Amino acid sequence: MTTYRAVHATEGVFSLVERELTDPGPGQVRIAVEACGICHSDVVGVENLYHHHEAGTPIIPGHEVVGRVDALGAGVTSWTVGQRVGVGYFGGHCGVCESCRRGEFVYCTDQAILGDSIDGGYAEYVTTRATGLVAVPEEFDAVEAAPLLCAGITVYNALRKASLWPGDLVAVQGIGGLGHLAIQYAAKLGLRVVAVARGEDKRELALKLGATEYIDSTAVDQAAALQALGGAKVIIPTASSGASMSPLLDGLARGGRLIVVGAAPDPIEVPTVQLLFGNKSIEGSLTGTPLENEENLAFSLAHDVRPMVEPVGIEDAAEAYARMMSGAARFRMVLDLKR
Amino acid sequence: MTTYRAVHATEGVFSLVERELTDPGPGQVRIAVEACGICHSDVVGVENLYHHHEAGTPIIPGHEVVGRVDALGAGVTSWTVGQRVGVGYFGGHCGVCESCRRGEFVYCTDQAILGDSIDGGYAEYVTTRATGLVAVPEEFDAVEAAPLLCAGITVYNALRKASLWPGDLVAVQGIGGLGHLAIQYAAKLGLRVVAVARGEDKRELALKLGATEYIDSTAVDQAAALQALGGAKVIIPTASSGASMSPLLDGLARGGRLIVVGAAPDPIEVPTVQLLFGNKSIEGSLTGTPLENEENLAFSLAHDVRPMVEPVGIEDAAEAYARMMSGAARFRMVLDLKR
Amino acid sequence: MTTYRAVHATEGVFSLVERELTDPGPGQVRIAVEACGICHSDVVGVENLYHHHEAGTPIIPGHEVVGRVDALGAGVTSWTVGQRVGVGYFGGHCGVCESCRRGEFVYCTDQAILGDSIDGGYAEYVTTRATGLVAVPEEFDAVEAAPLLCAGITVYNALRKASLWPGDLVAVQGIGGLGHLAIQYAAKLGLRVVAVARGEDKRELALKLGATEYIDSTAVDQAAALQALGGAKVIIPTASSGASMSPLLDGLARGGRLIVVGAAPDPIEVPTVQLLFGNKSIEGSLTGTPLENEENLAFSLAHDVRPMVEPVGIEDAAEAYARMMSGAARFRMVLDLKR
Amino acid sequence: MTTYRAVHATEGVFSLVERELTDPGPGQVRIAVEACGICHSDVVGVENLYHHHEAGTPIIPGHEVVGRVDALGAGVTSWTVGQRVGVGYFGGHCGVCESCRRGEFVYCTDQAILGDSIDGGYAEYVTTRATGLVAVPEEFDAVEAAPLLCAGITVYNALRKASLWPGDLVAVQGIGGLGHLAIQYAAKLGLRVVAVARGEDKRELALKLGATEYIDSTAVDQAAALQALGGAKVIIPTASSGASMSPLLDGLARGGRLIVVGAAPDPIEVPTVQLLFGNKSIEGSLTGTPLENEENLAFSLAHDVRPMVEPVGIEDAAEAYARMMSGAARFRMVLDLKR
Repeated sequence: MTTYRAVHATEGVFSLVERELTDPGPGQVRIAVEACGICHSDVVGVENLYHHHEAGTPIIPGHEVVGRVDALGAGVTSWTVGQRVGVGYFGGHCGVCESCRRGEFVYCTDQAILGDSIDGGYAEYVTTRATGLVAVPEEFDAVEAAPLLCAGITVYNALRKASLWPGDLVAVQGIGGLGHLAIQYAAKLGLRVVAVARGEDKRELALKLGATEYIDSTAVDQAAALQALGGAKVIIPTASSGASMSPLLDGLARGGRLIVVGAAPDPIEVPTVQLLFGNKSIEGSLTGTPLENEENLAFSLAHDVRPMVEPVGIEDAAEAYARMMSGAARFRMVLDLKR
Repeated sequence: MTTYRAVHATEGVFSLVERELTDPGPGQVRIAVEACGICHSDVVGVENLYHHHEAGTPIIPGHEVVGRVDALGAGVTSWTVGQRVGVGYFGGHCGVCESCRRGEFVYCTDQAILGDSIDGGYAEYVTTRATGLVAVPEEFDAVEAAPLLCAGITVYNALRKASLWPGDLVAVQGIGGLGHLAIQYAAKLGLRVVAVARGEDKRELALKLGATEYIDSTAVDQAAALQALGGAKVIIPTASSGASMSPLLDGLARGGRLIVVGAAPDPIEVPTVQLLFGNKSIEGSLTGTPLENEENLAFSLAHDVRPMVEPVGIEDAAEAYARMMSGAARFRMVLDLKR
Repeated sequence: MTTYRAVHATEGVFSLVERELTDPGPGQVRIAVEACGICHSDVVGVENLYHHHEAGTPIIPGHEVVGRVDALGAGVTSWTVGQRVGVGYFGGHCGVCESCRRGEFVYCTDQAILGDSIDGGYAEYVTTRATGLVAVPEEFDAVEAAPLLCAGITVYNALRKASLWPGDLVAVQGIGGLGHLAIQYAAKLGLRVVAVARGEDKRELALKLGATEYIDSTAVDQAAALQALGGAKVIIPTASSGASMSPLLDGLARGGRLIVVGAAPDPIEVPTVQLLFGNKSIEGSLTGTPLENEENLAFSLAHDVRPMVEPVGIEDAAEAYARMMSGAARFRMVLDLKR
Repeated sequence: MTTYRAVHATEGVFSLVERELTDPGPGQVRIAVEACGICHSDVVGVENLYHHHEAGTPIIPGHEVVGRVDALGAGVTSWTVGQRVGVGYFGGHCGVCESCRRGEFVYCTDQAILGDSIDGGYAEYVTTRATGLVAVPEEFDAVEAAPLLCAGITVYNALRKASLWPGDLVAVQGIGGLGHLAIQYAAKLGLRVVAVARGEDKRELALKLGATEYIDSTAVDQAAALQALGGAKVIIPTASSGASMSPLLDGLARGGRLIVVGAAPDPIEVPTVQLLFGNKSIEGSLTGTPLENEENLAFSLAHDVRPMVEPVGIEDAAEAYARMMSGAARFRMVLDLKR
């Protein structure tokens, strides 16, 4: 019997355990994990917020996995053992629901949610549906690639779906795990990037990451400042607070879009007049498909976009998770399984 | 000196006055009014809510005008005296601002707002920019055509921009001035229309107007009822209350859109999780261009869509306005200037 | 050993044979055929034009199949034995190629082509990938539903992708198997439909099918006639002749699209000036996905769109095929396997 | 009486003349010309190919004008004397036709065509509609900016409308006036650019301009070479020969688009099968609006895109025109009116 180390979260409490290695079922793939990022959204599985797994049973968190194919289940023909792969939040679509038959895999009604509905990547091995796999280029360092599979694709896809064009004004609110990547992507896409954050201390970093303007929201009226620049075509708020998003609406250009990429505990308050005059919109964008992840990795490689990470060993998972949740991390904690 | 009758609103108070007839300036057209609809949004000009005209000065309300071209200003070549025309909320775009040069006339930054920034149609004559004119087919009765130029185009355009396809599920919340037209348009577009309203008394009318389903929101959970039908691709809320819109979000299908067409005094509360899972959106849609109005009139004629109206004479404008604002009208009050 | 009747085409020669019934493989479904339409494109498999199967070996033609699920291969969970189903030209996508991972199943690089790369429906049984299955409502007569799965979806999808709106002018050239369906769909979508054909004898049928105008291309300049109506936003040529399509280009409105839905032996000659002035386009549209087929069936049911068919027994397949190819059929030959 | 120098083309014959300076009419602007590019399309006006002006009367050619506002006609309020401006092929839309009312100015049915329906820029002064004006940044050298107003916008807009994304494969066929700009724009947009031309001598320049691959179409099968790279999402043919475009179709990826940007004397031959399998398209794209020209100038400035030009004085216009038409220019001849 072969065993492997994994982190169990049971009703919010972490423990490092030894688990027995099992074979992947039909259509599944087992991955030997090299690295797994820690994401704010891990809380969904850790606290079982949406009841995606049975109450009281442990779940292995983690949905930013990079590793190598270790074993193939029956019927899996398009991946090979040893291949460099990853998995993000969407652990694999079913292929047969109405959304899947429409080709809209992110709307799959039977999606495997890594680290929530199925065990995730705070572990030496993870098993998931083959449809969830992302080919990861060898050029990437595992700890740097991991956060791109959720934090990276989330902001990249939001920008991609926003129908922007080089020179368009986009605002990124908040410079953290998502924000520091969003600024880089937007800049490399030729957009005019305004970083919006609290205080002056992040100005330098924002400009270094590619922002062309910086707005200190504690010093000036952020919406007025955005309008002075012409109004943002798109605003991507990354601070997880609905109250902090509402004031951004007035900073949108006519036809502008506020694209929400992360959950907040409190709602956004949306005055209808702000939507009506100028036909503005607020929309959600949630991660992306495995193929979109591959395209993001290719873009990141070509344009040298990388997350700032703090790698730790699996034995420090609880501590790293706490540091991530507290907002102290700069900017992504990553479990390095090869340490 | 020729005079004409008009309704002045001065800080919210109506009076019937005689005004001197003036010639249209360059690029303008004077219209002999046959009918002018009364719209909830008239309040914006009547109360001068957005300070679009000088405080304390009277404004003639009204932005649902049907009549005939009476005189042409210098440089106006594409309209002829005697031609049947109308004007809606957008009284004419400037043609030279950045939005206009982009062809996005509804975003014009120097738009004439009929009955708010310029005098409107509670009068025997109205003068506006030629760019605001809508050709109105002779087949229409003036009192029936008038409400289509704001109420009609508003819901028609929202449906048009929604990328729906026959058979798609659309929900219309509220059966009033906008709602009773939205149901007709949606039905004539081959959509599957769910009417959502309070109480059972509107069920019969809703079905008669073309709804295929009716949800009494006082009796059942409206979002759950919509989900039971598969989830709405688009929801058009017409009740002017933000609080009544928030609960609709849960009734959207994945990728669904809540399209706001009217202002509400209170904000919509939007939980981010509802946007994220299923990439939902909330957007505003505000009336349309003169050409879009013409296309709506053609559609209304071809498919026999008509508003339910209560016509009155100009001397009863104050009373009619009050009845409209109180929600008692079924469903649009219209000033009939030919009485 | 159970056997079933099937039509073999070997280098273009038909023969009725008895075949041994085999079990469906993993991911496959066996269907008991009720009806199979005969389509011009059957020639591709019959003559092995694209070398989709081994030269000299027999193929069973037919890609407009309606029947019932008879047996399920391993791993097939979303269909049940006895369920009413159909299969069209696309016999099932692979799910793992790049196109499939992008959700663009019609671009699958390992698509099963019914009656060409795999055996088709001129037989009492057909076996194909589960991904190719279309749920067929019980309300349909099998011989009427069959042609909708290729001829129907082809023109319906072309119209659907064309971003048209009720009242837009669309021209359908040719009134045959595809054309007589295209006219019906376009009319039921509220479009203004111009039928273009040779001679006066088809005028009455065209108008009965829903055309609002008829152009006899032997009597008038068809492009000039279309321009006199305002120019067509979309033209769907259904005559299988490139030479007959070229003159249509001048009948397009600015921004208009010629959407080619069937192969022709000769090329279309496209003067560049006609493309440039008015930004016109010529594009191909090839059938649709199984889900799109289901949506088409629902539309056809709701709006009473049906093909005109000539049903025959399987023993008359060779004769029926010849009649179809000669253009004599009015308008689709269908093998009725329940006779 | 003030006079100015201008080049007359009368039935194809050039002459340098003195003309009397006239005042701009209502809605018009007079520009003091600094530079005017010579474009292949000048032939349309020079030879009066489309009968846009009266036969036998002289026309001043030229539609790539850069200069300064010299005088304003009545009613022109959005431009100021002395302002740096330009005009391209579209000399100004009417604002009142159906296309203009739809905001689709490039489809204006009463467009002023510079150097064809109205006098153009081979002259010290040019007068056109204010709606045709393009604001030109002071940073530009006039002789470098001029070709961007037709050659530049033509390829830039084709790329812009093509819905490409960084990393997508685009092929540019021909390295001349349009091609050498198309390669630069595509490269600066982050696209993967394949240059396709005859012979090896242009390889070095192509790569220097930003191409990532070069295909010598005299040495290899260009379509096969494109397919070996994955197939082009978009191909922009710039050689003015229909016969040279037809073979490119096989080089398109599934869903790929051939975007024609220049007129050719011979038609493109389009086999229908190539359109059908993979839903490919061929479309025309003709220059752009004044605002799009401004956006192109901003992009060109930000990303340092410039044409390679050969400037000459107005007295050498005939010679320069001949050199341009012969294909000998590298790559754009420009009249420098400040010499």
